[in-house]
Amino acid sequence: MNAEEFRRRGKEMVDFVADYLENLEQRPVFPDVQPGYLRSLIPTEAPLEPENYEEIMKDVDRVIMPGITHWHSPYFYAYFPAASSYPAILADMLSGAIGCIGFSWAASPACTELETVMLDWLGKMLQLPESFIAGTRGHGGGVIQVHNGVQTSAFQPIPFKQHPQRWFAHSRGTASEATLMSLLAARCKIVRQVQSINPEMSEPEIFIKLVAYTSEQSHSSVERAGLIGGVMMKKVPTDSTYAVTGDTLKKIVEKDKEEGLIPFYFCATLGTTASCAFDHISELGPICNEQNMWMHVDAAYAGSAFICPEFRPLLNGIEFADSFNLNPHKWLLVNFDCSAMWVKKRQDMIGAFKVEPLYLRHENQESGLVTDYRHWQIPLGRRFRSLKMWFVFRMYGLQGLQAHIRKQVSLAKEFESLVRADKRFEICADVIMGLVCFRLKGSNELNQNLLKRITKRREIHLVPCHLTGRFVLRFAICSRTTESHHIREAWKHITQLTFELLQESIQ
Amino acid sequence: MNAEEFRRRGKEMVDFVADYLENLEQRPVFPDVQPGYLRSLIPTEAPLEPENYEEIMKDVDRVIMPGITHWHSPYFYAYFPAASSYPAILADMLSGAIGCIGFSWAASPACTELETVMLDWLGKMLQLPESFIAGTRGHGGGVIQVHNGVQTSAFQPIPFKQHPQRWFAHSRGTASEATLMSLLAARCKIVRQVQSINPEMSEPEIFIKLVAYTSEQSHSSVERAGLIGGVMMKKVPTDSTYAVTGDTLKKIVEKDKEEGLIPFYFCATLGTTASCAFDHISELGPICNEQNMWMHVDAAYAGSAFICPEFRPLLNGIEFADSFNLNPHKWLLVNFDCSAMWVKKRQDMIGAFKVEPLYLRHENQESGLVTDYRHWQIPLGRRFRSLKMWFVFRMYGLQGLQAHIRKQVSLAKEFESLVRADKRFEICADVIMGLVCFRLKGSNELNQNLLKRITKRREIHLVPCHLTGRFVLRFAICSRTTESHHIREAWKHITQLTFELLQESIQ
Repeated sequence: MNAEEFRRRGKEMVDFVADYLENLEQRPVFPDVQPGYLRSLIPTEAPLEPENYEEIMKDVDRVIMPGITHWHSPYFYAYFPAASSYPAILADMLSGAIGCIGFSWAASPACTELETVMLDWLGKMLQLPESFIAGTRGHGGGVIQVHNGVQTSAFQPIPFKQHPQRWFAHSRGTASEATLMSLLAARCKIVRQVQSINPEMSEPEIFIKLVAYTSEQSHSSVERAGLIGGVMMKKVPTDSTYAVTGDTLKKIVEKDKEEGLIPFYFCATLGTTASCAFDHISELGPICNEQNMWMHVDAAYAGSAFICPEFRPLLNGIEFADSFNLNPHKWLLVNFDCSAMWVKKRQDMIGAFKVEPLYLRHENQESGLVTDYRHWQIPLGRRFRSLKMWFVFRMYGLQGLQAHIRKQVSLAKEFESLVRADKRFEICADVIMGLVCFRLKGSNELNQNLLKRITKRREIHLVPCHLTGRFVLRFAICSRTTESHHIREAWKHITQLTFELLQESIQ
Repeated sequence: MNAEEFRRRGKEMVDFVADYLENLEQRPVFPDVQPGYLRSLIPTEAPLEPENYEEIMKDVDRVIMPGITHWHSPYFYAYFPAASSYPAILADMLSGAIGCIGFSWAASPACTELETVMLDWLGKMLQLPESFIAGTRGHGGGVIQVHNGVQTSAFQPIPFKQHPQRWFAHSRGTASEATLMSLLAARCKIVRQVQSINPEMSEPEIFIKLVAYTSEQSHSSVERAGLIGGVMMKKVPTDSTYAVTGDTLKKIVEKDKEEGLIPFYFCATLGTTASCAFDHISELGPICNEQNMWMHVDAAYAGSAFICPEFRPLLNGIEFADSFNLNPHKWLLVNFDCSAMWVKKRQDMIGAFKVEPLYLRHENQESGLVTDYRHWQIPLGRRFRSLKMWFVFRMYGLQGLQAHIRKQVSLAKEFESLVRADKRFEICADVIMGLVCFRLKGSNELNQNLLKRITKRREIHLVPCHLTGRFVLRFAICSRTTESHHIREAWKHITQLTFELLQESIQ
């Protein structure tokens, strides 16, 4: 394919994309395929000779589209949103064409520099403390992390089950990059501190005493970060709102210290996965500071909302944190992937892997290669992701982004009132952002059956969670194009299925 | 921006992209900006209200383009190639529009299933042993890993230096995902084995005895994988071709075993970063198998060439490996990022993080959340990357891809003959793929000065490496559009600068 053909095919693709997004509502949100459906639809080997472009596009309709879960359908209410906007798609096209791999300043100065400035822009929108802003002479700053850090079970097979509810058992494990990075930086910092007092202690001797903490409601990726880093990760119980309070953490930390452990890291969550609960970081922060523990604040989903003054108080206490992350690709109209992370002291991150453990020191020196490695590096880089932020921030403006957040929160509130008005249902957690956790009053089995019906009908799509042993349905406002009438339709559909379910259980 | 405006702007962007790529040759390959150049060109804060699209595109020309290192210019000979092709760009547009986050089968069945089949296609092109192919009932299989696993020094500041050669000191550290994943899986496997014999041994007690190996020529990311995983990583000396041989590894492993260590992992490299050397895996494989060590084979760059029968013998011995990776985004015309990894036993990867260390077991059970986490997961996913492979493999066909590899190798050979014909120069390593390592006979300083001149002139772009203490220039064939005349021009330019340099040093 030469440039001329690309011009033609590219413009056709733009129309294909626009058609897809404009007419998404007409497609069933959840696909009607069985595991293994695709393999039989395409050859078992790559072609020897080039094929025709038209054939490939026909196969997109024949092979791909039937197997897509349409994340941007206004009937998609599952997980958390994946952001999408036209300016971000345009910026991504540009990024693909430039195709630079920005693993260093020289590898493409614009790529590195726009990123630093965009993270400052976003940091200011969030009113982050000055210490997190890079500016021209700050000690902190932001970076776009690769989101999907470490897939811990990438090869999970797809068990074929007849039961429709089984579909949600196939998820793959990942460890969020920001959490892992902050944990490793904190681990490095504490090891150095301990060794400066007890130079005879080896790294593994210290590792065995280290203890990190996170909410029992925090995402499994936090736990996995502990596993990867080889340190103990304790889960802190939450209060009735599923949040960690200062008192609870303090007691556990003090007890662990008495037992000779070394508490060194706490990962707070603002907007938990299950119910969008907010840990009390203004209480937790001072405790972490006093106890010489790194505090990382994970606001992957909810963090975007802090650009609105009315939600910003939930971020109070961030001044005590060492690092913070949110994913603009979730709720800030920047297409996947774009994970933003800030640290107060860049030096903590830079230093994390520069100190070679003692057993490596000698060999490194012997090899004479250390200097080479520092001075030269193959492309292990990053796309030019900050272009997406730049396009989106400018095409929407802060006010446009705030309007997006507010609209989605108000849609969630609207859904909440519909649920509350029906006495058969209950709301299971405070509705603060765009997520509503609800269930039928009654057994877990009843709610599982309701979800099974919803999934089977494929008119709307949502996923469950467990809250204190109860099976709960999560209704997350996801698509940029979801409107009030979609919410009302969704609720009508749910109550219709509920009616059928309850009728049958009476019979 | 609505769909209608997107149709217009999208088509303009397609033309912008085609214009950029068609006229790339006319732009200086390396930018003439100083660190910090960008910040002063744009506002310090995001706009409150939406801006005009035309303004943004004007700023692309004003702000971004002057700071781009043009990786796809035919005058770019630095690092290793970053693949780019029109079919991949088209597929990526489609992927951006679908915007699904394929972290599980249900999250978008097509995304998961196409990936498995594309990795089988590629595996067959490479003639991987059957055990690495998923098929419908295989125990092995492939996955697209996120390439940029863990940035270990993401926040490295940019020191401003007048000396042009300093530019290559700003690289950021990363650990390749495939290496890290395989090391963690191997670590998990060995810990289980040791504990099954010595149930009283704790994880940290085992960790302290574990030892992994890799070539002294392997990429720094391998060393970092060891650091992240908290295990000792020893560097194995190489022979005169910069390759690890079986005898050398065997001696080191046996000595370590005598000293009570537990060798468990060896990362072989096919196509090292510095000089594209090939470890002797057909000798190393049986040793790893005998010694109960996981062998991972990293062929990030050179691996793509194994689709050509004449290069496939370099992969002989892969049947002894547990895992293997190559990056189609380097040399197989699939735009960044696309890192392919295969394992022989998917179960080894799946299992790696399912066994909670003892200290977690109790708490996990207490929290009652483990089951929830396995059964439900927020989007921590992956783009629909396999679409790029599908489009590229079909639009080029195996023969087209082979032609691309062969052309680039022949260009490297052509450059090699030009160098060899000039008695002032020497070739520093066998030219097997698309990389030529060469230098002026003489001091490191002389060669550093030559590179300084090359970088300063900005007509071509290349980076250095060190080989056994010598400063060496690396000339890598990178762009898809590089032709024989570019190679001859590049050589003419290098000899012209050499002439000037030598003249001045005489004076």
